[in-house]
Amino acid sequence: MVGGGQLARMTHQAGIPLGVRFRVLADTSSDSAAQVAGDVVVGDYRDLDTLKAFAAGCDVVTFDHEHVPTEHLRALEAAGVAVRPGPDALLHAHDKGVMRKRLAELGVPCPRNRIVADPADVVRFAEEDEGAAGFPVVLKTTVGGYDGKGVWVVRGPEEAAEPFRAGVPVLAEEKVDFVRELAASVVRSPHGQAVAYPVVESLQVDGVCFQVTAPAPGLSAGRAAEAQEIALRIAGELGVTGHLAVEMFETADGRVLVNELAMRPHNSGHWSIDGAVASQFENHLRAVLDLPLGEPSARAPWTVMVNVLGGDYPDMYRPYLHVMARDPGLKVHMYGKDVKPGRKVGHVTVCGSDLDEVRERALHAAAYLRGDITE
Amino acid sequence: MVGGGQLARMTHQAGIPLGVRFRVLADTSSDSAAQVAGDVVVGDYRDLDTLKAFAAGCDVVTFDHEHVPTEHLRALEAAGVAVRPGPDALLHAHDKGVMRKRLAELGVPCPRNRIVADPADVVRFAEEDEGAAGFPVVLKTTVGGYDGKGVWVVRGPEEAAEPFRAGVPVLAEEKVDFVRELAASVVRSPHGQAVAYPVVESLQVDGVCFQVTAPAPGLSAGRAAEAQEIALRIAGELGVTGHLAVEMFETADGRVLVNELAMRPHNSGHWSIDGAVASQFENHLRAVLDLPLGEPSARAPWTVMVNVLGGDYPDMYRPYLHVMARDPGLKVHMYGKDVKPGRKVGHVTVCGSDLDEVRERALHAAAYLRGDITE
Repeated sequence: MVGGGQLARMTHQAGIPLGVRFRVLADTSSDSAAQVAGDVVVGDYRDLDTLKAFAAGCDVVTFDHEHVPTEHLRALEAAGVAVRPGPDALLHAHDKGVMRKRLAELGVPCPRNRIVADPADVVRFAEEDEGAAGFPVVLKTTVGGYDGKGVWVVRGPEEAAEPFRAGVPVLAEEKVDFVRELAASVVRSPHGQAVAYPVVESLQVDGVCFQVTAPAPGLSAGRAAEAQEIALRIAGELGVTGHLAVEMFETADGRVLVNELAMRPHNSGHWSIDGAVASQFENHLRAVLDLPLGEPSARAPWTVMVNVLGGDYPDMYRPYLHVMARDPGLKVHMYGKDVKPGRKVGHVTVCGSDLDEVRERALHAAAYLRGDITE
Repeated sequence: MVGGGQLARMTHQAGIPLGVRFRVLADTSSDSAAQVAGDVVVGDYRDLDTLKAFAAGCDVVTFDHEHVPTEHLRALEAAGVAVRPGPDALLHAHDKGVMRKRLAELGVPCPRNRIVADPADVVRFAEEDEGAAGFPVVLKTTVGGYDGKGVWVVRGPEEAAEPFRAGVPVLAEEKVDFVRELAASVVRSPHGQAVAYPVVESLQVDGVCFQVTAPAPGLSAGRAAEAQEIALRIAGELGVTGHLAVEMFETADGRVLVNELAMRPHNSGHWSIDGAVASQFENHLRAVLDLPLGEPSARAPWTVMVNVLGGDYPDMYRPYLHVMARDPGLKVHMYGKDVKPGRKVGHVTVCGSDLDEVRERALHAAAYLRGDITE
């Protein structure tokens, strides 16, 4: 797996029972996954020779992020490396402009969007294009963004210059007045077997995933099936291998619009480690290794996952003891990362039959670990 | 953890979400745990200098087997190393003679037993001692046995010589006419917090654990509580830190007799990875690290674990694909070990609400992986 973050860490964990020998390409030997994996290569994923040396001896190469340059992926494939998902699919997660164009061709419902050339063009998008509804609009760099980085909500022309400073193409999108965010995740294997996880509700704070509830409360069976079908269709049409998370907006007028795609294990699927029969990490591995896929259904009526973000206190050990003592049923997942304000350093999960109680327990533990509450 | 077998492998897996940095002392770099852990020391656990070098920098030292010489454990403790479980407790798992003497002092029900000096003394134990019921009797070397090794069922005086050839003291025990075997597992932390897992039924074949059903079917609440109380009492009286498995015989006349003790994660607890809120491996780590313990209760009405033993076919890859394709809900656990006839190379687990169906699925998968059935 290219990338040594927490997604690789949790993928290695899922691979142990499968008997998978896991090699990780990490930026440093102290990366989250590098701390726990047995076969660690330290190097720069932007360097083709590093990637080639890393891939030698691997049956399959997969990714914990979408930042590997597409030309490097094509070069690896040309050299005979099994790259999964492949560059033709991964391009749609790497480049939001390519993704929007392709989803439009497929007729998948998306927010109104187009590539914009400069701040003046942003004004045309906001105020003059067909369907224009004025500011605010959302601007995104087409490549390189994650966790709210590379995304701006622009309230007027005077704020429209900043996104162009990165020197990459900029995508403008209508700011959707959504009721909530959903995520539909599917896993697809090279020969086309696919499984769909229950559709979840995802609550973001400042562009960072914060709380996930599985399944999405109050979502009708019809709407859930529609979201799953969209995700299955995208996975099939784009030729995705592995886990695909489709982040969606649910609108007040009953529409589901696609927001983002991720072709790797995704924060919206962390609930599945404790909450599903086979987790997203296990099924991602099973897919990229072309093994039969595992059962994606939930093990409990409700599962709530809350991210643990770094707070003002660098040492989380005492609250870590406290939350385990307070709630023996709490599942704590720490990523081995130094605590910095706002950084994802872990997550907690609670499963049960009473949603209010399950959510309270998960939120309390995450808030306590962060240091927001002390009792 | 001293010892690089599958118990260490699964303990490392359980430590990843806890944020534990795991170091393993393995016999070879290809040991089951050495394949997946990031911090591997290869060396001989019988050598004190190796143990001391291994322990340097560890917060706690624990074990995946009970074969480390007691004098080495005492030397480590004297050097300031936190050894958990400690040598005073571990001695009872290391030496069956010490264990039997102590359980007798505690009034814990055991099969009739005593140390025997030679074959003639075995005849006295079988035919002349108070309560003697004739042959067969069970002879065990007091140290060094595991998985049926070091245990003999002796049908007459002519078979009584063999166990003495190892040159270690020999324990004689009545051959209990049991209805079935049970295992009661508890986990105890250094300051005395303890949790008890549901009592399970364990089916052994040729002295090797084969099938475990959680909870033990048809076991009355009273008998289950009695078994858990025996295990909690032994853990407390012996000062155990970590996981203690108490293997027991259930007799036709309604008694529960203690057979063996294991002070480490144990085959009878593998069901808990998929079947309990917190597995034996997670709780063993939480205990030896003096973290608050996790919830030991079952997540499903029934969980069945079946060991995957090596069969006549060295390559298990095709059956591995088959069982995953046949049963997406099956949980497969492979240990990364070469397949040899009779060797434990993995286990499978199924959870559900219909015991017959759950058991059939687990038995089928294990038999298919072994190569006993091909459809």
